[in-house]
This record gives sequence, structure tokens and C-alpha cells, in this order.
Amino acid sequence: MTALTAYDTAERLFSRLSALDDALGILSWDRDVMMPSGAVDRRGSGVATLEGLRHELLTAPAVADLLAEADAGGDLWREANLAEMRRLHMRAVAVPGALVEALSKACSRSEMAWRAAREESDFAALRPDLQVVLDLTRESAQAVGGVLGLSPYDALLDGFDPGMRQATIAPVFATLARDLPPLLTQVLERQASGAVPASVGRGPFPVARQEGLGRMMMGRAGFDMMRGRLDVSAHPFCGGATNDVRITTRYDESDFLPAFLGVMHETGHALYEQGLPAAWLNQPVGRARGMTLHESQSLLIEMQVVRSRAFAEYAAPVMAGAFDDGGDWSSGALYRHMTRVEPGFIRVDADEVTYPAHIITRYELETAMIEGRLSLRDLPEAFNARVKDLLGLDVPDDRRGCLQDIHWPLGLWGYFPCYALGALAAAQFFEAAGAAVPGLAGTIRQGDFGPLVTWLRQAVHQRASSASTVRIVEDATGRPLGAESYLAHVRRRYLEDAG
Amino acid sequence: MTALTAYDTAERLFSRLSALDDALGILSWDRDVMMPSGAVDRRGSGVATLEGLRHELLTAPAVADLLAEADAGGDLWREANLAEMRRLHMRAVAVPGALVEALSKACSRSEMAWRAAREESDFAALRPDLQVVLDLTRESAQAVGGVLGLSPYDALLDGFDPGMRQATIAPVFATLARDLPPLLTQVLERQASGAVPASVGRGPFPVARQEGLGRMMMGRAGFDMMRGRLDVSAHPFCGGATNDVRITTRYDESDFLPAFLGVMHETGHALYEQGLPAAWLNQPVGRARGMTLHESQSLLIEMQVVRSRAFAEYAAPVMAGAFDDGGDWSSGALYRHMTRVEPGFIRVDADEVTYPAHIITRYELETAMIEGRLSLRDLPEAFNARVKDLLGLDVPDDRRGCLQDIHWPLGLWGYFPCYALGALAAAQFFEAAGAAVPGLAGTIRQGDFGPLVTWLRQAVHQRASSASTVRIVEDATGRPLGAESYLAHVRRRYLEDAG
Repeated sequence: MTALTAYDTAERLFSRLSALDDALGILSWDRDVMMPSGAVDRRGSGVATLEGLRHELLTAPAVADLLAEADAGGDLWREANLAEMRRLHMRAVAVPGALVEALSKACSRSEMAWRAAREESDFAALRPDLQVVLDLTRESAQAVGGVLGLSPYDALLDGFDPGMRQATIAPVFATLARDLPPLLTQVLERQASGAVPASVGRGPFPVARQEGLGRMMMGRAGFDMMRGRLDVSAHPFCGGATNDVRITTRYDESDFLPAFLGVMHETGHALYEQGLPAAWLNQPVGRARGMTLHESQSLLIEMQVVRSRAFAEYAAPVMAGAFDDGGDWSSGALYRHMTRVEPGFIRVDADEVTYPAHIITRYELETAMIEGRLSLRDLPEAFNARVKDLLGLDVPDDRRGCLQDIHWPLGLWGYFPCYALGALAAAQFFEAAGAAVPGLAGTIRQGDFGPLVTWLRQAVHQRASSASTVRIVEDATGRPLGAESYLAHVRRRYLEDAG
Repeated sequence: MTALTAYDTAERLFSRLSALDDALGILSWDRDVMMPSGAVDRRGSGVATLEGLRHELLTAPAVADLLAEADAGGDLWREANLAEMRRLHMRAVAVPGALVEALSKACSRSEMAWRAAREESDFAALRPDLQVVLDLTRESAQAVGGVLGLSPYDALLDGFDPGMRQATIAPVFATLARDLPPLLTQVLERQASGAVPASVGRGPFPVARQEGLGRMMMGRAGFDMMRGRLDVSAHPFCGGATNDVRITTRYDESDFLPAFLGVMHETGHALYEQGLPAAWLNQPVGRARGMTLHESQSLLIEMQVVRSRAFAEYAAPVMAGAFDDGGDWSSGALYRHMTRVEPGFIRVDADEVTYPAHIITRYELETAMIEGRLSLRDLPEAFNARVKDLLGLDVPDDRRGCLQDIHWPLGLWGYFPCYALGALAAAQFFEAAGAAVPGLAGTIRQGDFGPLVTWLRQAVHQRASSASTVRIVEDATGRPLGAESYLAHVRRRYLEDAG
């Protein structure tokens, strides 16, 4: 086999893996949106079979030789593709099959225990199962880290955002932990002194009209309905498959904002997926780079654009027409409601000013747990102390504290930082887009996402996995990923009322 | 590896194949019900990849040794399962990969050509592409037949209804071809002499009410909504996966009968799938036996039960309440409309009296083509001549003649007979159920499918693929599969007005 043939053979293998991934993507969407409840066990074992098959294909003995022999011939994308293939292969072979299986089973048990423990607000009830997950996660992280030359936590992080390192995150989060609490105090003082309208619109907001508004706004933002769908599920997400990007939302007839903002958030994710380079759809290099950039795209649309004063000026009259309920649809009322700041216990309900505090808390604690510096026994106390430091709140119970998220019970250690890094990257991208695209604010004031999305396409989407998150951010914005743009954005919007 | 281990290993392989089949089932449903149009190419190549993977798993060199070595240990179901595994394996290895691929591509081309040719009603435009499909189908049938010791046509037939043979079909179809034309004449004469009400109900029939009626009737028939769904698609079907059986229909607000009868037809298919033995769900022996029994279950519900006078007595007042349109909802009007006989050109629109003539025409011609006794050049003339013989109609153009069905362009030679055999088996099963279950007609008059479905469960559904179609029919009814029950049913319902 010549070197070129080895590369081509490797592409064929990864093309098949990508077909399996797409099948798994549709099956996952189907489970959450369509599947009858009686199919849950059978679907679970079916998906496990497909994942096992996927793992076997990737870790077959011949693959190591194939990837060692493969030569991408100097083409930059093929080189990047080969590097991705090797990374994925190394990660997959690093963890023994028995450990993968043990971790998977431990996560299933721990997830069930978590549901019951959260209900009872009793972290101690989860601890034994979570301890098994933590131990196996550490073992797995050590194995992957050993092969990739990374610390255990970096090995975990690398699984969600390839190339991201603790050394990049630590100084950025330190800046946020230092600057955000006093900034929050200022924002809350300023907010308290202003009049906030009681509501926007009057309601009720019929589901059909909310859906119509969402679809119309998705279209404005550039969502391609020929290559995607909008549906309803209990927990909104962006999923599906290549060329078939499916977002979901849920509706509340007493408040249209959660569904509207949710649809725009998921549309940000979807624009990324739909904007990936068509030539590399079925190869690793053609996939989205990772969770940080993914979250940056959803937050850029939701936080930077949709919750802006400029966009509110466009959206308020459109909404007034869509709901036709005789309520107050001034852009000022809409803007106020989309930018209300209120420290709270629950991460997923947090506004953009308080959100990073939730992530920093989790990031600090999960690195300490992975590095063996914090035991699960001490977790609730440590969690609550950090929430007090950063948000000034006294956590009343575990349900509103360290039991609120599913990530740790599901084995998703190393995932949390991507959320906050995404928020920072979103601010940095939007600032750069504003500098690069003349009149950008004006287009957004007209509900025209075209110039912005064109910029995102070339700056982020089309680069797919051809470079690291850090490199893509720096190329697009001229600066390393940092907290400056985000902090400036918060000051502008919440202290100067100019965002 | 011990013999027992070999059997267990084989079960594990087929369990994985079954997970792939279920994934392909959901992807196929999704394509027809949910998928955005822009995903069609990507989905097509993804599905081809999964099918290729499935073929590779089944035909891997080690599998032949494994199946040769496996010993089912005397248990009847395990023995039957092993026999099914060997049959599926032999069929798969019999056809060289290059031929499978060539046939698949030829069918794709031919399907596209068929759509255009049917539009133009121009069989000559399809002939070159169809000739390639026919040639490759014959080659494939010879290869499979050579391995299984079957004639080429029997090899094709065996792919849709394992164990079914031309020798079984020929005398049965000969009886139908002899007895049906004079019977049809009598039926039409009798029908002409009676008054047929102009309509049942008044309409329009809102989709939501049609759907509500359909769901309610599915429930009466025993469809388990926890393990299935009802949706809308352009062409109704029963699909999905194990424990997740999904049927579809389409609605016409000017006529509720097509959707209603369609839902009940697909419910018959679904009852079969939902009634298969839970212990064997992921093994070949646990699957439905084949297309003849599948069609028998849908036709038993639609033709034998739902279109009966007894069921009309239950259904008419229910429908009157569901549509509440002030129309004529007498059970007599409903029954007349469900049992109207009218010879026509289109197979899928045919009533149960004229339906077999469409099948016999296709069966005779496709056996002649596979056996090299009829050329495609002579097909239209031969087709039209047989329609004239059996139905007394002059086919005006190819679109309403040999171009109407997608089966041959798609390479589905040997499929047609199952439709008519299913109709015969349905009549024979229903007759046997009536003899075995005291008061069966009374339960149907009350809209109670319970006793009937209980009988079908043990007589047909629970036997799955543990025996051949012929054996299952004979065990359930005490007689070989034949035309007698069907002909008696037609005479009773259409000449004596007692069905």
C-alpha cells in the first residue's frame, strides 16, 4: 500500500464513522423528540451496539498502521485531517475497553441516582455512585493524558475542546473572578435605580404564533430550512446530522421570551453546523472545532445580537404584529426584559453577567477533584462557599447547589469551562466583526443578519477543525482569547446602557 | 471455541445486525416523514455506508466457520434461529459484492428513469435501464439459487417470503385465474341491480377529527401507542424499529375513508410487529416471517374485519359522533362504500375482488421475464392482453399499464405474489379464527378486537420466523394455503351480502 493509498483508506474509514455518527445523531434527536416511551430500553441497547461498532472500527489493529503510514502530501486541510484522525484514534485506543464499559455503566447508575438525589436535595445519596464515576473518570483521564502527554484535567478538556488547556483558562478565569463581583455590584445598583417595565407584551402568547415568530427569525438569521428543522422537546438542543441540523425549543404561553431566546440560541449553534465546509462534511477536519466555539456561536447570536438595543428596535414591532395583543411592545421594554440581571442559584437560568461565576465555581471544584485536592465529601461546602464569594448568595440546599447539574453524574468532567469561554469568545468575535464590517450595527437594527453571518462563515464556520480554538480566535480577532471584550461588553451594556 | 460458544457468538453477531436494522428502520421512517429535502444525498450515502457495514459484518470470513461450528443444542427456537442465520448468511455470500453494488446503482438509475417514463407514459424510455436491472437481477437470482438449490425465480421469492415456492403458488393462482373472472361478472351484475347510496357522511372531514378517529380505532384494534406512532407521509407505510412500530397515513378532507382504511391496514401490519415474541426481538427467528404473512395481517384487519357488515354496525355511529356533520352515517351506507367493486387499471386502488387479477398478471409476466421467456420489448402488449383477459379492460396507456408500479424498476422481482397470497391467507385465518373463537362476529360488532388479536398472537405473531409461511398457515387453519376461503369469502360478502 502506498502512502497516498493509506491516507485515502483512512479517509474511507472516517467517512464510515461519520455515517455512523450521523445515524447516531438522528437517533438521538428522535429519542428526545419522537420516540415512544416503550422503546427506551431497546433504543438504548441499539445505540450502545452502534457505539461499540464505531469504537471497534476506530480501534481495529490495522488502523494504527494505516494512520502511521498515511501521508497527507502537504495539503493543509489533508494534513489537519490526518492530525485529527490520529488524535481521535489515540484517544480511543488509550482507554481499555473494559474501562470504557465500566465508566459507561457507572454513568448510567449515577445518572439515575442523581435524578432521585436532586429530587430529595440529598447529595449524600448520590455520593457513592458519583465516587465511582469520579474514580473511573480520573483513571480514564490518566490513560488519555499519558498517551497525549497531557495532565489528566487537560486530557478531559481536550475531549470537549481539542487544544484547550488549563494554562490558557486559569489566567482568564482569574481575571473574571477578580473583576466580575465588583462589576456585578455596580450593575445591580444601577439597575435598582432605573424603572423596569412590568412586562413586555400582554399575552397570552399562543404556541402557533410563538413558533411562527421563531421560524421567521431563524430565517432572518440565515437558518437553512432545507437542511434543518425546528421541533419541540423537554430540553432544548441543537442536534441531528450533517446537512440535517435540528433544533428544538419548548413553549410557555404565559411568556414568549424563553422560547424566542432559546430558538435564537440554538440557531447560533445551527448556523455553525450549516456553515461547515461542504467539501469536508464526512471527515474529522470538517466537524465543528469543539464546545467552546460552538457555545461562542450560540451566545454570539443570543447575547451579543438578539439581546442588544439595536436588535430590540427591529424586533419589537415585529413581535407586536406577530402577537397583536395590545400590550407594550416598545423596544425599550423588550430590551430591558432581555437584559435584566439577577443573581440566582441556578446556572441555566443565569443572565450573562452572573453566568461566568457559576462556571468558575464548577471549574475550580472539578479541577480540584480530578487532581485529588478535593473529596466529594467536602464538595457541597466548597461549592456553597464559592457561590457566596462570587455571587453573594447563600445556597439553601444541594438541589440549588452542587446537585443542580447533570454533567458530573454523566461523566462530563472538563465540559463546564467551554460555556464561559464561549461567552468570552462571542464578545471577542462580535467586537472584531463590528470593526471589520462597516455599518454592522445598522444592519442588525434592520434585522439583517447577512453581513454578520458572512463574516462568521469565513472567520469561524469555514475553518471547521482545521485549527485550534485558540488559533481561530486569534486569527479572527487579532488577539488571544481573553476576558477583555466580554468585560467591556458588560460595562457598555449594563453600566453605560449602550449595547 | 466450543460449539455452544460458537452459537452464542453467532447470536451476538446477529444482535448487532439487528441494532443496525433498527437504526436503518428509524432512518428510513425519518426520511419519509421528517427529513428536510436538502439532506437527501447525504442521507443516501450514509444509509449506503450502514448497509455496506451490515453486509461486511454478515459476510466476514469468520462467520462461515462460526455458523458451521455452531450447535443450537436441540432447543427448537435456537435450532430455527440457527437455520435462519445460515440462510441469511448464504444469501449474502452468494452474491459477489461487485454484483450487489452494480444492481444497487442500476436500481437507482432505473427508479429515476421510471419516474420520468411514467410521467410521459412511455415504457420505451424506461426499457434500457430496466433491462440492466432485469439482467443483473437474473444474475443475482442464479447465484442465490445455485447456493440454495432453487430455481432463479424461487430464489427471488425466497427473499421476500422464505420457504415460498412457485410450485405452491402456481396451482393457487390458476384456481383464481379460472374462478375470479366469472365471479366478478356475477358481482358486478348484482351490484348494478342494487341501490348504492351516493355517499357516507357529508363532509368535509377535518384532518384533526380523522386523526382522532384513526387513533381511537388503532387503540380498539390493540395498537400499543407506548411502542409506536402514527404520522403523515406521502405514501402510507408501516416501519420503524423493534418496540417502536411507526405507521403513517395521508388525509383527504373530502373523503375520510382512504385514511381510515389505510390506518387500519397499517395497524394490521403493526399488530404483527408488536406481537412478535419479546424473547427473540434481536434475533432472525424473532422477526416477522415474510411479506405474505405481513400482508395477511394487514388485509385481515382491513378487508376481513373492518370492511365487514358487523364492524360497520359498530363503526357507523362512532364515525357519526366523530364527524358530527349531519350526514348519512347508517351502517348500511358505510358498508356499501367499503365494499364497492369496480374493475380499474391501478393495482393499489383495486378492491378485494379485482385485486388478485392485478397480481396474477404481474406474477405470470415476471416469472416469464426471469426465466427468459418474455422480453421487455414484448412486455406492454403481454401486460395489456392479460388485463383484458382477467378484468375485461383495455389498458389505454403504459402509465395505467406496465409502468404503474415501482417494483420492477427497484429490482423487487418476486415480491408481487405475496400481496395476493396475503389476501388468501387473511381469509383463511379469519375463517379459522371464527371457528376457534366462539362469538367472534359478536365481538367485532361491538368494536372489540381483543379475542381476534389474542388468536392471531398465538397462531401467527408469536411464531415469528420459527416456521415457514406454509407451515404457519397450515398449523393455524388445518389446511394448506389455498384460494378456497378467499373465494368463499368473496361469494358470501358480494353475492350473498352476508360478510
